[in-house]
Amino acid sequence: MSRGRLEAFSDAVIAVVITIMVLDLRPPHGDTFSDLTDRVPNLLVYILSFVYVAIYWNNHHHLLQVVERINGAVLWANMNLLFWLSLVPFATAWMGEHPRASAPVAAYGFVQLGAGTAYFILTRTLLAVHSADSPLAHALGRDWKGKLSVVAYAVGVAVAFVEPWIALGIYVAVAVVWLVPDRRIERVTPNEA
Amino acid sequence: MSRGRLEAFSDAVIAVVITIMVLDLRPPHGDTFSDLTDRVPNLLVYILSFVYVAIYWNNHHHLLQVVERINGAVLWANMNLLFWLSLVPFATAWMGEHPRASAPVAAYGFVQLGAGTAYFILTRTLLAVHSADSPLAHALGRDWKGKLSVVAYAVGVAVAFVEPWIALGIYVAVAVVWLVPDRRIERVTPNEA
Amino acid sequence: MSRGRLEAFSDAVIAVVITIMVLDLRPPHGDTFSDLTDRVPNLLVYILSFVYVAIYWNNHHHLLQVVERINGAVLWANMNLLFWLSLVPFATAWMGEHPRASAPVAAYGFVQLGAGTAYFILTRTLLAVHSADSPLAHALGRDWKGKLSVVAYAVGVAVAFVEPWIALGIYVAVAVVWLVPDRRIERVTPNEA
Amino acid sequence: MSRGRLEAFSDAVIAVVITIMVLDLRPPHGDTFSDLTDRVPNLLVYILSFVYVAIYWNNHHHLLQVVERINGAVLWANMNLLFWLSLVPFATAWMGEHPRASAPVAAYGFVQLGAGTAYFILTRTLLAVHSADSPLAHALGRDWKGKLSVVAYAVGVAVAFVEPWIALGIYVAVAVVWLVPDRRIERVTPNEA
Repeated sequence: MSRGRLEAFSDAVIAVVITIMVLDLRPPHGDTFSDLTDRVPNLLVYILSFVYVAIYWNNHHHLLQVVERINGAVLWANMNLLFWLSLVPFATAWMGEHPRASAPVAAYGFVQLGAGTAYFILTRTLLAVHSADSPLAHALGRDWKGKLSVVAYAVGVAVAFVEPWIALGIYVAVAVVWLVPDRRIERVTPNEA
Repeated sequence: MSRGRLEAFSDAVIAVVITIMVLDLRPPHGDTFSDLTDRVPNLLVYILSFVYVAIYWNNHHHLLQVVERINGAVLWANMNLLFWLSLVPFATAWMGEHPRASAPVAAYGFVQLGAGTAYFILTRTLLAVHSADSPLAHALGRDWKGKLSVVAYAVGVAVAFVEPWIALGIYVAVAVVWLVPDRRIERVTPNEA
Repeated sequence: MSRGRLEAFSDAVIAVVITIMVLDLRPPHGDTFSDLTDRVPNLLVYILSFVYVAIYWNNHHHLLQVVERINGAVLWANMNLLFWLSLVPFATAWMGEHPRASAPVAAYGFVQLGAGTAYFILTRTLLAVHSADSPLAHALGRDWKGKLSVVAYAVGVAVAFVEPWIALGIYVAVAVVWLVPDRRIERVTPNEA
Repeated sequence: MSRGRLEAFSDAVIAVVITIMVLDLRPPHGDTFSDLTDRVPNLLVYILSFVYVAIYWNNHHHLLQVVERINGAVLWANMNLLFWLSLVPFATAWMGEHPRASAPVAAYGFVQLGAGTAYFILTRTLLAVHSADSPLAHALGRDWKGKLSVVAYAVGVAVAFVEPWIALGIYVAVAVVWLVPDRRIERVTPNEA
């Protein structure tokens, strides 16, 4: 099976997801800066979601570099990840309108929980078709960031019911942790273009 | 003629189709979970359509792997498939709003009938340029799933006029049948990445 | 300069153009077939535009197959074509709402005139960097279809002011002429995948 | 790390950005040419933004041709550029509605300032992983156009508060300067397809 087309399709889906989110960022009705100010929460949530999706693309890119083989289960595990990422614009639009309310903030965290879990499943599905001393296995290692993120999202969803702003802080913190490039995989791949 | 660019274009169209459907999934107006509940039918129909389009991508991916040559007729047969897939967001948005009404459920089935028929035509058009003992011919075999799906969609459209929920059940059942990976082709292709 | 990335970018733009047109095909408000009937003009115009854009992709695909070199002028000639194709959804949405009115039908023809002219310029720009006995030059030949289409669109725009339905007939006729695959280029390229 | 997938992802994002802008170009409500006239400012701003994004794609295409290696910092510098480009449809839609008002014109310039700065950072990040006598370093040279554009956007933003039309003139002038193809890189690359 071809890794190339899996990458190409994932790239296309992620590119559309990251781009169409801006369609939900409606231009202000008026023509003053105070009209733009009303859009600031939407804009900040958009930036958070852009960073999240960019992190997924970067990690997916790194991950696929060390993949030696795929099978039907990998295709579906990848499709599952793309499904959750496709819901990010929906969650972003809702939380952008109501950044202080429990339901939208919990829903946003739930979508991220789904995406994080899907990414974790994808790594396990890939490990299942690679040997224990493959570059992939070495690169992933104990994968504490992947596991921690899933726990953090779950905590965020729970906390959103009590205090949405703390949940938002958790989401931002997870993004910051991931912004550090995934050296695990960069370590084992040559950096020639 | 280049198979690569046919794959790339199909990937891009399918990626956009699967992703823009979420644009029709409008965020709730209010900020409570009961507002989100109103969107549950839309969300379920979205999931069904996502699975359908994902199945088409997976099968298309498998199918093209064993293709040895294409011609102008294949390009148009493929374009016909993409046309029907491009209508899926329209049918999804309508059925998502009215999941209990005959017309939207029949229309949804009609679009799937079109896509299923188009996929079947695509396989026949490909077989016409391959020998009877080509990997493609072996991989497709008697293609009972393809034929059965087309029949099931036709039945679904008819049943939708009497009882939309049964039609919906048929659509879900077809998706489940296809979720089983197409081993016919996986059998004859190496799984190296 | 890389032909591959020019193809990839054009594919992506054309794939998005052909797909997002369906976003302007709003689902009916009601849930009956008569509500769907109101959308029939939009749907027919959508089909016409889908066919047009599909023809451009097919011809672009064929054309690029025999291209041996490109330069900066080709990149911009191609971008000009993509610009006019990007206006097709706008023209489609307007004519779909008002298929009997002069202005939308003339505007639709004007966009097609722009796209047809841009395609013609692209072929001339490519010929300028190929020798007179190159496969490209042989494949294009006298290019009567390209020249005739541009004339037909111009006539269509003019006629739209008098009788929009005749203009629509001209647009459909041009699409039918182009649906015949471009044998000129298929003749000179191998059909191995 | 793979340059190819970076190009493919950037192509897809830029293709979506350049294409979805037309979704904000709503078809006129009425069916006369005077209804279309109301859309002329939107259309002109759309053309300006299309040209801007096309220039970025062209320059990105040229730039990546001479890149020999990338690293994690390049991926993020590129993502930063894509972020600013993703805001172009938002800025275009707002300025298209209010082309004579300070806030939208300043906001448009601010987005271009962000994109121009991001492109400049991308070139510096690339230079950091190339030697001083690499084709990349020779091709970029002193990069006066990149530096001048950033200054021009900053001036445009400031001027917009006083006289929006002058700011618009500056934006158009920068686009014209860039429309001249980037001979610096074309000089050092073969033009075989």
